[in-house]
Amino acid sequence: MAGIRTDLAIEAREFYNKQENRQDIPGVVVDVDKDESYTVTRVKVVEDVGARIIGKPKGNYITIEVPKLRENDRELQEEVGKVLAEEVARLMSLNDQSVIMVVGLGNWNVTPDALGPRVVEHLLVTRHIKEYVPDQIDEGVRSVCAIAPGVLGITGIETSEIIRGIVDKVNPDLVIAIDALASRKMDRISTTIQIADTGINPGSGVGNNRKKLSRESMGVPVIAIGVPTVVDAATMASDTIDMVIDTLINESPESGEFYNMLKSMDKTEKHKLIDEVISPYIGNLMVTPKEIDRLIDDIAIVIANGLNIALHPNVDQDEMNRYLN
Amino acid sequence: MAGIRTDLAIEAREFYNKQENRQDIPGVVVDVDKDESYTVTRVKVVEDVGARIIGKPKGNYITIEVPKLRENDRELQEEVGKVLAEEVARLMSLNDQSVIMVVGLGNWNVTPDALGPRVVEHLLVTRHIKEYVPDQIDEGVRSVCAIAPGVLGITGIETSEIIRGIVDKVNPDLVIAIDALASRKMDRISTTIQIADTGINPGSGVGNNRKKLSRESMGVPVIAIGVPTVVDAATMASDTIDMVIDTLINESPESGEFYNMLKSMDKTEKHKLIDEVISPYIGNLMVTPKEIDRLIDDIAIVIANGLNIALHPNVDQDEMNRYLN
Amino acid sequence: MAGIRTDLAIEAREFYNKQENRQDIPGVVVDVDKDESYTVTRVKVVEDVGARIIGKPKGNYITIEVPKLRENDRELQEEVGKVLAEEVARLMSLNDQSVIMVVGLGNWNVTPDALGPRVVEHLLVTRHIKEYVPDQIDEGVRSVCAIAPGVLGITGIETSEIIRGIVDKVNPDLVIAIDALASRKMDRISTTIQIADTGINPGSGVGNNRKKLSRESMGVPVIAIGVPTVVDAATMASDTIDMVIDTLINESPESGEFYNMLKSMDKTEKHKLIDEVISPYIGNLMVTPKEIDRLIDDIAIVIANGLNIALHPNVDQDEMNRYLN
Amino acid sequence: MAGIRTDLAIEAREFYNKQENRQDIPGVVVDVDKDESYTVTRVKVVEDVGARIIGKPKGNYITIEVPKLRENDRELQEEVGKVLAEEVARLMSLNDQSVIMVVGLGNWNVTPDALGPRVVEHLLVTRHIKEYVPDQIDEGVRSVCAIAPGVLGITGIETSEIIRGIVDKVNPDLVIAIDALASRKMDRISTTIQIADTGINPGSGVGNNRKKLSRESMGVPVIAIGVPTVVDAATMASDTIDMVIDTLINESPESGEFYNMLKSMDKTEKHKLIDEVISPYIGNLMVTPKEIDRLIDDIAIVIANGLNIALHPNVDQDEMNRYLN
Repeated sequence: MAGIRTDLAIEAREFYNKQENRQDIPGVVVDVDKDESYTVTRVKVVEDVGARIIGKPKGNYITIEVPKLRENDRELQEEVGKVLAEEVARLMSLNDQSVIMVVGLGNWNVTPDALGPRVVEHLLVTRHIKEYVPDQIDEGVRSVCAIAPGVLGITGIETSEIIRGIVDKVNPDLVIAIDALASRKMDRISTTIQIADTGINPGSGVGNNRKKLSRESMGVPVIAIGVPTVVDAATMASDTIDMVIDTLINESPESGEFYNMLKSMDKTEKHKLIDEVISPYIGNLMVTPKEIDRLIDDIAIVIANGLNIALHPNVDQDEMNRYLN
Repeated sequence: MAGIRTDLAIEAREFYNKQENRQDIPGVVVDVDKDESYTVTRVKVVEDVGARIIGKPKGNYITIEVPKLRENDRELQEEVGKVLAEEVARLMSLNDQSVIMVVGLGNWNVTPDALGPRVVEHLLVTRHIKEYVPDQIDEGVRSVCAIAPGVLGITGIETSEIIRGIVDKVNPDLVIAIDALASRKMDRISTTIQIADTGINPGSGVGNNRKKLSRESMGVPVIAIGVPTVVDAATMASDTIDMVIDTLINESPESGEFYNMLKSMDKTEKHKLIDEVISPYIGNLMVTPKEIDRLIDDIAIVIANGLNIALHPNVDQDEMNRYLN
Repeated sequence: MAGIRTDLAIEAREFYNKQENRQDIPGVVVDVDKDESYTVTRVKVVEDVGARIIGKPKGNYITIEVPKLRENDRELQEEVGKVLAEEVARLMSLNDQSVIMVVGLGNWNVTPDALGPRVVEHLLVTRHIKEYVPDQIDEGVRSVCAIAPGVLGITGIETSEIIRGIVDKVNPDLVIAIDALASRKMDRISTTIQIADTGINPGSGVGNNRKKLSRESMGVPVIAIGVPTVVDAATMASDTIDMVIDTLINESPESGEFYNMLKSMDKTEKHKLIDEVISPYIGNLMVTPKEIDRLIDDIAIVIANGLNIALHPNVDQDEMNRYLN
Repeated sequence: MAGIRTDLAIEAREFYNKQENRQDIPGVVVDVDKDESYTVTRVKVVEDVGARIIGKPKGNYITIEVPKLRENDRELQEEVGKVLAEEVARLMSLNDQSVIMVVGLGNWNVTPDALGPRVVEHLLVTRHIKEYVPDQIDEGVRSVCAIAPGVLGITGIETSEIIRGIVDKVNPDLVIAIDALASRKMDRISTTIQIADTGINPGSGVGNNRKKLSRESMGVPVIAIGVPTVVDAATMASDTIDMVIDTLINESPESGEFYNMLKSMDKTEKHKLIDEVISPYIGNLMVTPKEIDRLIDDIAIVIANGLNIALHPNVDQDEMNRYLN
């Protein structure tokens, strides 16, 4: 099952299904809800064998796929916000006194990586009001705080160190981390949201002891929310090569021998080869849609609204707007 | 000595000098270096009486005034970077193993408040390289990390709590905090830099127990670097009223009685009155030059360069550029 | 009636009403529609005497005031978009073959001046599709094009020259120009929209023969839509002084003489004096709310939506979204 | 010679050289200047046969290659500005009364496409000063104006129509157009500058009668300056496939038959096939370095400085800075 590199459990699952030509994965329970405009897939990795196959730790991975989410449709955006709120609520267990800390991962200066910081900007943050001027806020409002710590290349500090330092001061009951992801598929960009309760690896960098944000490292439960905003360039090249070779082969069947040789190559080996060939060429590239700035803005608002609903279930929309100003 | 509200020790001193019509302030030692294109004023508050008069804690306040710093002159900008490096170096005591943490205070979404975060972006950050891949970096390079924590209104967490949490993880030997300041005078915006070793109050907000970033709260020395980027609206109104009334009086001396009444009003009382009258009117206003975006960019680079030189004295400019990429 | 400097006919009217203590202005017809969340005031200057009093040419000035428009309420924003569409539709006379050119005035690099360019970004622009691939678009969609020409200080060309040059190539039936305005009152910022059919003066600058965008200069009707985004600093200072002096006088009635002197000063003279006193002090300042970036974004979308509805009355919201992507 | 799609004459030449295994191209004169930190290649297409081979109209194509231009080295940036000024000066013929119009092509909202508009922001624009307040400016300063017209998708108007309309009003003696280009190679991004006197095709879009900005369409000479800021995704995929197949073949020589089949395919046919296969997959993608925002800023300043020197040869750097503020 090597060779698949993806942040999305749902892509890992699709890859396995296709590779192995079977629908079920041992040790993994899948539940799908289809609605007119979106699909919710809940992948629960319950046993180690499933974790190995899917390449992700045991836990819950909920994916909301909304193919038309890029179409600037405010009603759909609001609907998805509510669906997100429900699914996040499934994974958390809070009371009225709970303190929640939202972490916006990523670099606010690199548009496709700015999802986390932009969600933070649109969040209803209340901890300081509840602490200093509690009479100015309804009791039903929970204590929410937020931080966008930047990335290792900017700070020189492991993101998990920064967050753990703040967690030690703030003592939240739950950490929710938002991050931009890479997908294998262009059409997932800004249309797919993954929610997981197994923690998250913030970005990638020079260090090799990169620590996860997880219940283990933070001491409190961690929910991660991710949205694909870039396509991995190596993956795109690899997939393209597969497609092109397939097409070439179909048009000249006599070269079946070469095809079989390619086909029989181990996926990992092949991917490694491609990486070697193209990495000096692609360097520090990112592959992203041209309208990425607008897409990030829109999805950040969807996620912020979803979190505002999930975290403050007793606050109606009008009140929410009042607090947000 | 009430009535003067300014972040700049040099303005407090000018105010006192003018009010009291005397040059020296008890308990305060002043030293001025004039160069063709800049003036460095070192105000040392040595006794409590001086601290009371100047409205600032005992310690060092160094001001670099460069009237032409807004004129887009790269050579002047580089020169000021070097002057800044020297003055910062006066206030710090480091060795080759020292770890320095730079804190960019302010809100990156509000241009005049974005100075701190923008300095952080241009800084030579090395801690992660020294920690994980030390062979990729010269020994002469010090360990520098940086954080732009955002503002209380966005995070819901006191900035000093955030920083202290990170300080506890990183254990720096020195914290350098950068912030945008308010000035009484338009022409100080982006032309004056203040360096102090007495700590800094990050912004202002709803809480009333706002804690300083200082040696007391952080457990390590704190150097604060500030640049005026806005004019305080109430101060501007107050100063304008004084000027207009002066002019009116001069033109119609018969109204001397009213003038004397105004003149005899306690400054604090008068300022309070003005505040009451105008605060519903000015609300959440900021007063800033139109070209503020460019000004902030330029001065952020001056400060980042100055810090890069001060913190890595063994690295020459070429190497610096190499590391910055 | 000198002394009042405002881009808003409604403020000129209020000023006159207050100065002269009378409600009606000769040669001006006023019609007010009040709704729960907004007020529409239609000022029609029908005679020269009215034009002199109000300081604006003969024509229609429609003002939509929405005190809560800054409160991030999407439903209200959509409602105001529809009201704007209706009021703009009153002033234009188009058929299905009409070509409309929208001009976004202002500087996209200076946030409070970026309203026009940002409206252009959100507009449903169709002229190129109708011209080159007409089968890809419904017949009901009108031909709309748009330009954000920048400001004189950036281009070195009078904005009216630029627009006239493009008008000569495109031959539109109507020009709609969007611009940021200055108001006397803080609370008008981003809550008041003015629509006029008398043309518009783009910004201000070094040239003294600044030409209007108007039916005379363009050869086709021009509708101007403006929203206050800054407070004029001199006006703010002047108003503040009036308020403070009023308060001072009330508290010390013996100074009535000085008060009367002030009161008897001609408004123009007084404003000129204030200008002289403060202009070296305030220089190139702008006075604006801290959250101006978000405010401009929101109001730009309201106006773009309003224009999209007004210009393409046969297109429903779903289609609109489809075209916008 | 079909199959090569590039905006750069130098890449077309390299491609030909490699394909045909020969150094000289009939009808093309090449002249190379090598310096320590840059190479200037002047390609002059003098005959139709050369134009056909190189896929570009007859005229001059000057390329400045500066491999280290991305390294944030101010001295190098200034040097390149001067080299650019010299090379641009070779292609223009002006006197003191000449009026020059600079056109910043591209979309200021899409970072890699924002080169043109950002150059315009840093330009010394003087036409309005020379026209309205000529005594405020030295005689040696030429009349320069500038426009960033936006892109067809935003305006609905062919860029060449917009520019021709403005040219008809302003009557410049020379148009200089700046645009972002696509390159085949990642390492050309922001390190290569092409200057040509044969005009430029602004972007690409839905229309099929896209008109060039050229002497023919504008009525005055047009110099185009371009810098690669993106890699063409299809080209990248195609090149990657070639490299991977080469590597695979070398490792398994028995598949020589397939290799020869691939090799014998016409380049155009192959590229078309790849396009067909990947275009639904890559859609509206762009491939760009992560630090693109900084790269665009830096190169925009290099080009603006180069133009400021070329267009105002009698103005020294200090004066330049004074005018720029």
